[in-house]
Amino acid sequence: MVQSIDFFFFPASTYTYLTVNRISALATESGITVRWRPYNLRAILKETGVVPYPADTAKNRYMWKDLARQAAIRGIAFPPTPPPYPSDPELLNLRMALVAEEQGWVEEYSRAAFRSWFIDHRPPGMDGNMRPLLQAIGRDPEALAARADTQDIAERVDETAELARSLGLFGSPMFKVGDELFWGDDRLETAIAWARRSA
Amino acid sequence: MVQSIDFFFFPASTYTYLTVNRISALATESGITVRWRPYNLRAILKETGVVPYPADTAKNRYMWKDLARQAAIRGIAFPPTPPPYPSDPELLNLRMALVAEEQGWVEEYSRAAFRSWFIDHRPPGMDGNMRPLLQAIGRDPEALAARADTQDIAERVDETAELARSLGLFGSPMFKVGDELFWGDDRLETAIAWARRSA
Repeated sequence: MVQSIDFFFFPASTYTYLTVNRISALATESGITVRWRPYNLRAILKETGVVPYPADTAKNRYMWKDLARQAAIRGIAFPPTPPPYPSDPELLNLRMALVAEEQGWVEEYSRAAFRSWFIDHRPPGMDGNMRPLLQAIGRDPEALAARADTQDIAERVDETAELARSLGLFGSPMFKVGDELFWGDDRLETAIAWARRSA
Repeated sequence: MVQSIDFFFFPASTYTYLTVNRISALATESGITVRWRPYNLRAILKETGVVPYPADTAKNRYMWKDLARQAAIRGIAFPPTPPPYPSDPELLNLRMALVAEEQGWVEEYSRAAFRSWFIDHRPPGMDGNMRPLLQAIGRDPEALAARADTQDIAERVDETAELARSLGLFGSPMFKVGDELFWGDDRLETAIAWARRSA
């Protein structure tokens, strides 16, 4: 039986950039399948009053430095200066990820979206960046923008927050293997090992 | 030249339990010396409004589960049920660590203090646990309690917070190698590798 990992993530989470760039290769090596599951972490953080990396704090500055170091260690491209943060004020990036999820191309979307944000400094949810991003990967910007604005997708956003509450998700990335949760890019290998052991 | 790591920590930090139980062996293997530097992380967290693991939250429950898993992976003893948390309401554990630091036995104190807290469920800063802890490691509880209550040590507590502000410390454990900071037990190996490279 093929074992699987649920990869829960918020498309505007910084550390998730590392995971998006390495989870597929690691999982494939291990014969594990990955379900990419975008979710509304922002709703959870608001409820608990958590601001992960407030602007102009030592923790925020450390986060960018640590991300650059980890990217270098893992051979992942990283920009010379940090990309805009926070991003996705209207949750457009999340909503488009949910559209891509229902249409079966969420991994492709997410890889392109993180690349646009980090490498090109063009966060998909801001400044008209979505259209050129979708065009660049051969998708129809008008039809997708219309779908992302529907009540269906607004409800999906809320459903993902409800699921997060019921599962106890509070960060991104988080991995779920059976009933076991793992938080953070640093736990990706542990989560995959757990899935292999459970297989 | 022998390279060194500054190991900044708050004696009532949960993840620091892992580090206290593994930093010396790892550093010795690598020919790195470690300076154990207790500091007043609580002052920093209060200033920034951060509560790392609020009671009765998914994040708090995850933290204990993750700690137990990491301890198992690293071969570190772990109690069947989580120890009392938060602890050290009067910063007595921190103050005693600073006394031990000035007297040259901060590592011995810290290992015993974390063991008392985690394994025996007796946090050193609470419920009269300090006296039997100090006696068990052959120290003089009266003289040390008197020293921990001095203005000198109260000033040392504040000095460590001031140093933390100036260095940009915001968590525990944090490692400093030259001007480079590393946060979290998960970064211990990276910090040691950095120190070796700098040697």
